[in-house]
Amino acid sequence: MNQRKGKQTVEFKNPSTILQTASIVGKKEGDGPMNEYFDYILDDDYWGEKTWEKAESKFQKKTAELAMRKAQLTDKEIDYIFAGDLINQCVGANYAMRDFDASFFGLYGACSTMCESLSLGAMVTSAGYAEHSLCITSSHFCTAEKQFRFPLEYGGQRTPTSQWTVTGSGCAILTSSGDGPYITHITTGKIVDMGVCDVNNMGAAMAPASADTLITHFEDTGFTPEDYDLILTGDLGVVGSDILCDALNQKGYDIYKQHKDAGKMIFDIKGQDVHAGGSGCGCCASIFCGYVFKELKAGNLNNVLVMATGALMNTMTIQQGDSIPGIAHAVRVCRSL
Amino acid sequence: MNQRKGKQTVEFKNPSTILQTASIVGKKEGDGPMNEYFDYILDDDYWGEKTWEKAESKFQKKTAELAMRKAQLTDKEIDYIFAGDLINQCVGANYAMRDFDASFFGLYGACSTMCESLSLGAMVTSAGYAEHSLCITSSHFCTAEKQFRFPLEYGGQRTPTSQWTVTGSGCAILTSSGDGPYITHITTGKIVDMGVCDVNNMGAAMAPASADTLITHFEDTGFTPEDYDLILTGDLGVVGSDILCDALNQKGYDIYKQHKDAGKMIFDIKGQDVHAGGSGCGCCASIFCGYVFKELKAGNLNNVLVMATGALMNTMTIQQGDSIPGIAHAVRVCRSL
Repeated sequence: MNQRKGKQTVEFKNPSTILQTASIVGKKEGDGPMNEYFDYILDDDYWGEKTWEKAESKFQKKTAELAMRKAQLTDKEIDYIFAGDLINQCVGANYAMRDFDASFFGLYGACSTMCESLSLGAMVTSAGYAEHSLCITSSHFCTAEKQFRFPLEYGGQRTPTSQWTVTGSGCAILTSSGDGPYITHITTGKIVDMGVCDVNNMGAAMAPASADTLITHFEDTGFTPEDYDLILTGDLGVVGSDILCDALNQKGYDIYKQHKDAGKMIFDIKGQDVHAGGSGCGCCASIFCGYVFKELKAGNLNNVLVMATGALMNTMTIQQGDSIPGIAHAVRVCRSL
Repeated sequence: MNQRKGKQTVEFKNPSTILQTASIVGKKEGDGPMNEYFDYILDDDYWGEKTWEKAESKFQKKTAELAMRKAQLTDKEIDYIFAGDLINQCVGANYAMRDFDASFFGLYGACSTMCESLSLGAMVTSAGYAEHSLCITSSHFCTAEKQFRFPLEYGGQRTPTSQWTVTGSGCAILTSSGDGPYITHITTGKIVDMGVCDVNNMGAAMAPASADTLITHFEDTGFTPEDYDLILTGDLGVVGSDILCDALNQKGYDIYKQHKDAGKMIFDIKGQDVHAGGSGCGCCASIFCGYVFKELKAGNLNNVLVMATGALMNTMTIQQGDSIPGIAHAVRVCRSL
């Protein structure tokens, strides 16, 4: 029987292994400092498709295919797909996955979706319901910008706190047997809404949820910041990262050294003019499936906590005067047990 | 270790019990033939809120609270919430659940979401990760109509194959111990797209996915239609139900006697002018959490297969000339083991 630990955490008795990952990103992401870790960098954000939405689906489909190829698996050997994205009704994932012969669970956790999929994938795989689970998300600058903000042709100015949605996709395949890296613990967030209403400051809206999940993770497990080489959030950006680290410091947890944020890593913040950093499901997904997984395999990282954060509003709830609920899910990944 | 069976099915070694359910619906649903089974019927589709979206969130929040009250549980005793709805970015669920102190997984499976949440809830609860899981969905005629079709004020004509989105919510609380009704098997669907493009004929778009899942369920488990008192789909409506039954018949499965569709049950099809019947996540959810659960508890039903079906497009993919992917998830519920 697998064990619950504390309030919101599961400690797996049979931790699943991350068998393989893949990541594919767009040109701007490929021009950033993490470019050596991505599997493919696309010059054309349309990827030969007629619309950005079809292009995002193609990113997700091709990333899943690449991960399966690297894992030497076919879609028939995938027991469950856990997938989501930011487009209305999650069509990025739905259309990408319709060609695969595998049971499908659609998820929506905004930019927290990669850790939601890893969490559910780990639960289902560790419990023996699946031999292989495929966890995947994507985002696309152009589909997100037109849906959540302005038509791209408008060329509106961006506030200093705004973040730049990453064009990319990350996919991880979990297996019930294997020799690591292992998903040993998950701490699943609850929705936290501190009344932030500024959609141009997502970092501030999501930071309270990430602080809540991280403190709960430490309390539930007894781990301390020193137990980690890396605490990776995604995507709080510049503003939210400072809020998180300061909030943890006030509670007696010093994470300044271990903490990195996928939104700050993926771009050269000043040089690439992305204001507060990257965002979107594809940001944390591509950094985790690129940089983190490859550094774990290389032995340069041993114990990582990855915590993707999501802002759960839509454009209409903001127009109706409501605030932005946030959520964050944490996943502990270790090179060996 | 829990057991996978066949291609897409899990047979639970420790089946979870459906501890309690609740259902709340709007006036039109309360005027229909299933009205005695709902816990509350609302006269005001706004439920005192300023917008339909806020009203839908209130439906979901109040339905969850009612289910917890009936189960004599507080939100702190709920380990996981599995929730979703049809509004962009699933804000119906996100805003409803922000007041609860429980880990949250957001789902999107269109009208299949209730069975997606029951499936994941059953997996997580049966594996021992959770003592109590809360599974919930909602839909609202007005939020769906304005988002997917036309402004309500426009008063557009409806085609004979169109369905009427149910205003309502259904919630089920699962527990790892208990004396039934039990969730013994789940068959999780894959995405099936047969090229149907008519958004006014959702039943036809979803029927192939439901046939695929149902045939797979019979093949995986060895069960036959005769093993069930009721095979409940939701929501194929009049058109999709006929396609499903005929497709199964061609494969040698006669389900004409056992099959009912939540979309056909919830309204008096002719008398209430709903064309091909009801639809929306709230339809299957309120019929399952109302009629099915109460008849199981009363001993009038013993073995039920509930299979919610979803159409995974959005308005934009249709405008871009794409077809409608469908999905269906089946959950077997038995009064006793």
